Amino acid sequence: AGSMWLYRWYYSKLCQRVLGFTIFLILALAFVEFPSSFTRTADVRYRSQPWQPPCGLTETIEGLCLLVFLVDLSVKGYLVGRAQLQQNLWLLAYFVVLVVSVVDWTVSLSLACEEPLRVRRLLRPFFLLQNSSMMKKTLKCIRWSLPEMASVGLLLTIHLCFFTIIGMLVFTIGEKDEAQDKERLAYFQNLPRALLSLLLLLTTSNNPDVMIPAYIQNRAYALFFITFTLIGSLFLMNLLTAIIYNQFRGYLMKSLQTSLFRRRLGARAAFEVLASMAGLAGATPETVGVNPEDFLRVLQKTQLPKIHKQAITQKVRSYEGRPMLADEFQKLFDEVDKGVIKEHPPKPQYQSPFLQSAQFLFSHYYFNYLGSLIALGNLLSICVSGGLPCGGVGGPVLQPAFPWTPHPHTVAGHNGKPPSSVTLQVFLVRDSDLMPGQRDDFVLGILDCVFILYYLVELLLKVFALGLQGYLSYRSNVFDGVLTIVLLVLEISTLAVYGLPQSGWMPKQYGPLSLWDMTRLVNTLIVFRFLRIIPNVKPMAVVASTILGLIQNLRAFGGILVVVYYVFAIIGINLFQGVIVPPGNSSLVSNNSSAPCGSFEQLDYWSNNFDDFAAALITLWNVMVVNNWQVFLDAYRRYSGPWSVVYFVLWWLVSSVIWINLFLALLLENFLHRWDPRSHKQLLVGTQQ
Amino acid sequence: AGSMWLYRWYYSKLCQRVLGFTIFLILALAFVEFPSSFTRTADVRYRSQPWQPPCGLTETIEGLCLLVFLVDLSVKGYLVGRAQLQQNLWLLAYFVVLVVSVVDWTVSLSLACEEPLRVRRLLRPFFLLQNSSMMKKTLKCIRWSLPEMASVGLLLTIHLCFFTIIGMLVFTIGEKDEAQDKERLAYFQNLPRALLSLLLLLTTSNNPDVMIPAYIQNRAYALFFITFTLIGSLFLMNLLTAIIYNQFRGYLMKSLQTSLFRRRLGARAAFEVLASMAGLAGATPETVGVNPEDFLRVLQKTQLPKIHKQAITQKVRSYEGRPMLADEFQKLFDEVDKGVIKEHPPKPQYQSPFLQSAQFLFSHYYFNYLGSLIALGNLLSICVSGGLPCGGVGGPVLQPAFPWTPHPHTVAGHNGKPPSSVTLQVFLVRDSDLMPGQRDDFVLGILDCVFILYYLVELLLKVFALGLQGYLSYRSNVFDGVLTIVLLVLEISTLAVYGLPQSGWMPKQYGPLSLWDMTRLVNTLIVFRFLRIIPNVKPMAVVASTILGLIQNLRAFGGILVVVYYVFAIIGINLFQGVIVPPGNSSLVSNNSSAPCGSFEQLDYWSNNFDDFAAALITLWNVMVVNNWQVFLDAYRRYSGPWSVVYFVLWWLVSSVIWINLFLALLLENFLHRWDPRSHKQLLVGTQQ
Repeated sequence: AGSMWLYRWYYSKLCQRVLGFTIFLILALAFVEFPSSFTRTADVRYRSQPWQPPCGLTETIEGLCLLVFLVDLSVKGYLVGRAQLQQNLWLLAYFVVLVVSVVDWTVSLSLACEEPLRVRRLLRPFFLLQNSSMMKKTLKCIRWSLPEMASVGLLLTIHLCFFTIIGMLVFTIGEKDEAQDKERLAYFQNLPRALLSLLLLLTTSNNPDVMIPAYIQNRAYALFFITFTLIGSLFLMNLLTAIIYNQFRGYLMKSLQTSLFRRRLGARAAFEVLASMAGLAGATPETVGVNPEDFLRVLQKTQLPKIHKQAITQKVRSYEGRPMLADEFQKLFDEVDKGVIKEHPPKPQYQSPFLQSAQFLFSHYYFNYLGSLIALGNLLSICVSGGLPCGGVGGPVLQPAFPWTPHPHTVAGHNGKPPSSVTLQVFLVRDSDLMPGQRDDFVLGILDCVFILYYLVELLLKVFALGLQGYLSYRSNVFDGVLTIVLLVLEISTLAVYGLPQSGWMPKQYGPLSLWDMTRLVNTLIVFRFLRIIPNVKPMAVVASTILGLIQNLRAFGGILVVVYYVFAIIGINLFQGVIVPPGNSSLVSNNSSAPCGSFEQLDYWSNNFDDFAAALITLWNVMVVNNWQVFLDAYRRYSGPWSVVYFVLWWLVSSVIWINLFLALLLENFLHRWDPRSHKQLLVGTQQ
Repeated sequence: AGSMWLYRWYYSKLCQRVLGFTIFLILALAFVEFPSSFTRTADVRYRSQPWQPPCGLTETIEGLCLLVFLVDLSVKGYLVGRAQLQQNLWLLAYFVVLVVSVVDWTVSLSLACEEPLRVRRLLRPFFLLQNSSMMKKTLKCIRWSLPEMASVGLLLTIHLCFFTIIGMLVFTIGEKDEAQDKERLAYFQNLPRALLSLLLLLTTSNNPDVMIPAYIQNRAYALFFITFTLIGSLFLMNLLTAIIYNQFRGYLMKSLQTSLFRRRLGARAAFEVLASMAGLAGATPETVGVNPEDFLRVLQKTQLPKIHKQAITQKVRSYEGRPMLADEFQKLFDEVDKGVIKEHPPKPQYQSPFLQSAQFLFSHYYFNYLGSLIALGNLLSICVSGGLPCGGVGGPVLQPAFPWTPHPHTVAGHNGKPPSSVTLQVFLVRDSDLMPGQRDDFVLGILDCVFILYYLVELLLKVFALGLQGYLSYRSNVFDGVLTIVLLVLEISTLAVYGLPQSGWMPKQYGPLSLWDMTRLVNTLIVFRFLRIIPNVKPMAVVASTILGLIQNLRAFGGILVVVYYVFAIIGINLFQGVIVPPGNSSLVSNNSSAPCGSFEQLDYWSNNFDDFAAALITLWNVMVVNNWQVFLDAYRRYSGPWSVVYFVLWWLVSSVIWINLFLALLLENFLHRWDPRSHKQLLVGTQQ
């Protein structure tokens, strides 16, 4: 009975939440601990000295956390029992990790926080890992697919080596040609360099560049690079996806089946217990049943939601006191699965036929469409009208000037444009070359007023048609209403401050975020009104519900991502902290432009360092996205040493290759599960046996 | 009977091959026609005037091709029959395309090849499309998944717009700060620019760059970009994959089932015909059977492979003249499915026990492993020994100097190295800073001799153990043998020319490809010996066989890729031919370095143009790979106009989004089909009903 109480207490919501919060806390410590992430920027050139926690602060919090884990471990160990304890590897590992952490923690305290290395920081993600059964399962899935992944990896290696050798042959045999020499010097100078060039090509992050010197010389060389990318990126990399997905197929189904099976088993056990209480008189096992009154008494003590309890009670009453059989008992619990259908309060009754037809009109869903249409108009007025200079003849129309290369002609032409042309300069798309003082907000001001008035009228009409209770029972209406009221308040205060709009009307800016800016900011929240179209379009509804369902199943994957990021960030900090040093002389701009094109320095990547935890996370993200990761490789090779390559390639393998494929597998599984009508039948068949 | 003959003739191998060749020919014309691709380089700066075909040459070939298509169409129309003809949209479209092509062709001839636009070039891929039923099916699959793809596309658009508006809000409200101003000017200047920046971020092709100016200012801005990428790239893009895969599930299975069903139907029909010939005497339908002699007579006229014919004849003989029933008749054709198991000739018999044990030893598969091991050693001697300077103390060891940024320190250190240090300079990894005259090939020369001797001994021992016939019956042995003999011949001639290797031995180079280089080239073919490990490792064997199976199913996808590339290349040529102009002044180098970093000019992308068909294909490939495609967008905007963006974005959508997902779907389908044991059972159940 004691262990039963402990079990209930341990799996109570409060207890689990405390545990979850403790895990969050100990993980979040990494942001606070030395090197702390409390600086505005991560750029080594502009970074100020961060606030450092006094020695003992983070250690105290950590000690408390470790204490909680100790309690957790002992309770878990007690509940599992000694016999199982020795076979449960996860619990044993938990124990080892805790001991190491505590030892490291005491060392840290005794050295007055001056220790060079903190092993326990690396071990912290383990607490997250061991607390989630889904994550353990996912890890098992990954372990199962390792042999096949290794074989594809081997194929990839052979592919890489093979093409490296061919590439070195092709690009070093000629050797007299100047262009070929360029290719050789740049990408195929020696074996490690050539291997790395092709590894980068596998991630397509140096795609056109690597082939350019050879391709300039002869068209045929392009075939080499294209064949390599085709086989490597398209075939082998996607094969990895297929392998991981193959391992994950039925993963979701199985876990659903298991949980359903467990529940049925639990219900059956409850039935047996209750039946043994009631039916000593009943002889044959077929007629053994549960006394409904016993059941109702037990039901009152459980922690089911009220609505489910009511439904079950109602059903039990329908048996009118005769004992329930096992099947009937099982069926009772199906009630729990049924979703709660929310009922909207009835519409108010109006006597006048005119009012009735008006009510019909404004509660019709076409009225919602009209509202969306008006919101679209509002959005367009915000966005597009500003892009098109209205009066200026010959003004550049929707000029998509590109950001990455300054275009002298366009800029010059822009600056020379007479500022008197009547342009609807809206803040979203106002021409950046115009000073804030030059814009004319008159038309926009009028439009804003009109739209806000419409929203207000819509609000009132809907309240009239549905009644206040009915109006508030729709979530989308609540959102619309709040938005409208906020807009109204802002608009009224704007008018009060600046007066009515007139030609040449131009509210001044007070402070960083003027009232006027606020109004426009809230105005753009109108975009959200469009989200309610989604459930109305059928394929979009399915897609959206898939995404929502996915998010629920995502916690395990998110957890693994957190673990991986955490471990690599801590390793990265230990390896590369303070390695990136800002350029010595103070003339930053000249230094910047003197760096070769495409280098870390020229691209201003200074903030991508491992000097604190937050910066390390962003750096790892940027490498995970893979684009331009050669810049990181190059910079860290120069600042830290050639072996930094290993760290980055390992991170690429873990994050970009394995994790992203894992994610894709989960997504496919979720999506197909939801779309396949057969899967639900299989699920039921599987559990009823 | 006439139509039967026509049917046979039309579907004969010869006829189909002629048709296939005609399609290939008319597609390949694009390389020859004006603007022809016969230049060595596609670089606008160095490109010579290409050879232009005289007017009438390509037109004559095209006319012949069109004639063949005309015959094809009429035969197909006749075979399908008039009633079906009018409902068969593909045939009607074929007719229309042919008429348009012929008209365009005559116009072309009458204008003496000076016509500005050739519509028929755009229509040519249709000939490829209509000839393959698989491609038509694939197209149907794509059409079916269009609604869901459109809904994801809509979600993507909403996502993009939403983040664009938020981004413009975030990066334009402050407006006083210099750093934010930089972000605004660079990436969020106006609506189209911001949209494009985020579209590029969706493809991750401007990943760290777009966030850098804001991230330098404040860490928190990174969250905006990371959230955008997470939702857009990870969720929505992968959802597209899931949707396309969902449409393709069972695609392969269905087509297999259909073909099996058709064959069974054909066999049943043949049975009925043969039975009606034989058994007028037999009364009940259960006992109706085929006379084996009739069957054998018919069998002799068919075009089955000889080995299958023999197997079937043998089985028929086993019925000893009694009539075959329908089931037995069906089973006969299972023989056709059985693979041919190649039997190796028996090993030679030796009398002496010593020879017998030697034979056992050398025919054991461990001996193969030894050979692979030696080849690995050979490979290592080629690759690694050159990377490690042996004698030079303090010489840079395995220095992975990166290609993209010149590193002055390393290069300086290298040049200053005393050339007298004994380094194993092998051609693959020889230090590029050493002149060819400085390398010392003595050790490598000796090693080469040793390895070639080993290969020779291995060859002889294997022939001894397996017999010449047995040796040649293994393909891998044939390859090894040829390789060894070629190596031997080359080595002997090398020795004859240069003499025996000695210290400081250094063969001179005659001509572009010296004998010595040749030897080393062939030496690297040793790599291929490793490919034979693959079938021995089980998971690798499955993976490799999946890839091989995939290639067979790939033709439809390859065909669609060809169609898409062809159409876009032709459109691109019409839009952008001659748009990229080389820089005016002759001082190329200075011009190059004056261009801003990351621009088309600085990156030397001059050869990525649409001036001829081959160059257009490579350009499209580079855009399809997506990395750095912003450079193309920018360059073509500047050289051609802002609307060129539409073309490139469209190409990105078609190639990178749709086609690559299609490919992944096919790969998954193929892989899972092969790995899932249930699928085969389902297949049989499905067809036997």
